Amino acid sequence: MELIVQKFGGTSVADAERIHRAARRAIRAKQEGNKVVMVVSAMGKSTDKLISLARDISDDPPRRELDMLLTTGEQVSISLMAMAIHAAGHEAISLTGGQIGLITDSVHTKARIQKIGTDRIRQELENDRIVIVAGFQGIDESGEIYTLGRGASDTTAVALAAVLGAKYCEIYTDVDGVYTTDPRIEPKARKIEWISYDEILELASQGAGVMHSRAIEFGKKYNVEIHVRSSFTDFSGTWITHEEEHMEHIVVSGVTVKKDLAQFVLAGVPNQPGVAANIFAHVAEHGVVVDDIIQTFDQSGHASISFTVEESDLSECKLVAEEIRQAYNLSEVICKEPVAKVSAVGVGMRSHTGVAQKMFKALAEAEVNINTITTSEIKISCVIDPDQADDALRVIHAAFELDKEPE
Amino acid sequence: MELIVQKFGGTSVADAERIHRAARRAIRAKQEGNKVVMVVSAMGKSTDKLISLARDISDDPPRRELDMLLTTGEQVSISLMAMAIHAAGHEAISLTGGQIGLITDSVHTKARIQKIGTDRIRQELENDRIVIVAGFQGIDESGEIYTLGRGASDTTAVALAAVLGAKYCEIYTDVDGVYTTDPRIEPKARKIEWISYDEILELASQGAGVMHSRAIEFGKKYNVEIHVRSSFTDFSGTWITHEEEHMEHIVVSGVTVKKDLAQFVLAGVPNQPGVAANIFAHVAEHGVVVDDIIQTFDQSGHASISFTVEESDLSECKLVAEEIRQAYNLSEVICKEPVAKVSAVGVGMRSHTGVAQKMFKALAEAEVNINTITTSEIKISCVIDPDQADDALRVIHAAFELDKEPE
Repeated sequence: MELIVQKFGGTSVADAERIHRAARRAIRAKQEGNKVVMVVSAMGKSTDKLISLARDISDDPPRRELDMLLTTGEQVSISLMAMAIHAAGHEAISLTGGQIGLITDSVHTKARIQKIGTDRIRQELENDRIVIVAGFQGIDESGEIYTLGRGASDTTAVALAAVLGAKYCEIYTDVDGVYTTDPRIEPKARKIEWISYDEILELASQGAGVMHSRAIEFGKKYNVEIHVRSSFTDFSGTWITHEEEHMEHIVVSGVTVKKDLAQFVLAGVPNQPGVAANIFAHVAEHGVVVDDIIQTFDQSGHASISFTVEESDLSECKLVAEEIRQAYNLSEVICKEPVAKVSAVGVGMRSHTGVAQKMFKALAEAEVNINTITTSEIKISCVIDPDQADDALRVIHAAFELDKEPE
Repeated sequence: MELIVQKFGGTSVADAERIHRAARRAIRAKQEGNKVVMVVSAMGKSTDKLISLARDISDDPPRRELDMLLTTGEQVSISLMAMAIHAAGHEAISLTGGQIGLITDSVHTKARIQKIGTDRIRQELENDRIVIVAGFQGIDESGEIYTLGRGASDTTAVALAAVLGAKYCEIYTDVDGVYTTDPRIEPKARKIEWISYDEILELASQGAGVMHSRAIEFGKKYNVEIHVRSSFTDFSGTWITHEEEHMEHIVVSGVTVKKDLAQFVLAGVPNQPGVAANIFAHVAEHGVVVDDIIQTFDQSGHASISFTVEESDLSECKLVAEEIRQAYNLSEVICKEPVAKVSAVGVGMRSHTGVAQKMFKALAEAEVNINTITTSEIKISCVIDPDQADDALRVIHAAFELDKEPE
């Protein structure tokens, strides 16, 4: 008998009707001969509502108490899900993170999973029940309650699939899979059938709102096949798996755009060991999250360091940049904002040549100027003018023929 | 250093402003040199809202899942309370029933407290924190979550006061104490300063909505002084304590009325051992809750058994009565409905004579006809016509001069 983990996000359990629908899916999977473990998020916008309750009380609530508050959201939805399954005449039991023994480290609001007990779940599955686990939460060894960070119900689901040796992990959401690009910008965007963990990680980090990255890392590490699909249809969605030979034929799997970025350029930085480390330690101390970093050098032996940050960190980052300018006696710090970044991602880049060239040519023909370029083994990113971002995305999508089914 | 337990009901934590007000009370008590443990109910109508969520899903939700659902209400309010105390610059920590080790039996939705751990609470109090405990909930030895029944946050508070050896237990609510009678019916009703556990238990069982009865029983058993008071004023409320000598001078402490009752009379019942037991076992099997029972006998050696039930149980009880009529071959079963019951309660009855006579005389002067009478050591009840109930209450209140301060 196979075991399947099904994860339902907030939109998939937003009201009574949707909870019943999710319950029917789990029942069907069980009737098809599987053991079924469900992982459920808080209903619809309920986590946001809880956060707004907290903000009414305090501008700076203690993180411990936020965890105490927010974990109630999933506890509500798991109990309602169990009621729905019972109402349909089947056996089910809801369990909190603490009750299944999901043990975390002791970092409130962004704890990491240390280990997961399987005894209780296996026992309930043996009793022929559908087991419904609260996502996003756990306890530490002393029984304190922790959350795993926003969106981390995905991580709970994939981690459970790993420790239980599930056949696969289904992620039910409000979209029907992962697309070659954002369909709101390029209507010709096509649903991807199969994609590798590495590609989806790059796509997620380049702005595609797909799944919680930590969940994908878990899947990669523990070899869990993940099926991202719609809770509103029965169509197959996107399978996320290990890289397979046929994937190499696809040079580029997806194209993303990230807007609302700012780019800083520090020119004339002394090119000595430790300088870059010092600069970015300084940036991190101010809580600024750095996106991409580029360093080059000139004939005089000085380095030019460029990096992008989210626009929300802009004012803080300007202060840091000015401190760095003074510390290293730089003549000038350039700040360009807003800027956008378009990226093409694909494992096929490893074995194909001419990919970068094709992308640059497409941008040139569309008269898009490129500020900076960065590449990784499976990704090429260009920072450009945000007014040209949507056009850029569309021409890259067309250049790699992403609107067509792969052979 | 003394320890005080403060319990805040749903109306006392219904919104952010009220939560801040409750937080200030706890902080003040701490600043006055006390250790403070708070017990908090779910916010306002939130328990009702959770129940209605469950009803949207299922007509008959499993009790286990109801407990899983409902305990989130208190978890929300304790975390918000801790945030409010932190925001005011003081240390606090919220703890669930499970976290303090409040162990119950295994009866979902109406579990009973088996034992309460004090180590965790004492440790947090030693760390100079205000400890905020979720009312109404506990876990069993296996970690399953249970609730103690509606209104049972009072019980949590008094039980905690008992095990912690608190100086007293404050019950903050939306009324400013216990009254001699319902002020909506008799505007001359007066707030009672001191009252005994036994009296308040009788008042509660005769229809005065004061406090959860089990909480009072706990207070009596473990000698916890309870102070029922308003969360909106600083006035002293009503102290509930062991019977003291001065209380005996007060013949009647309070007068209550219970409306919407139905009265059944079974006449000509064979007067043999076991008959009453059989009849009421039958009634209980149908889930009908019996209020007062009266049995008398006639010259023929037959018994007449009369009892009152809530009108909500009327149709079910009519079926039971008909079954009993057939089983014992009774000529007739009388059902009178609606009826009302007025009661006078006071420990002074034990040492004073003429109390019943004074009550009957007052009713006679007001031309109130009495159907049946029952008495206990500290209570006299008369079943009457509901149209005369309010008048009856007022004349009894006046006859015992309850509108005047006791000497």
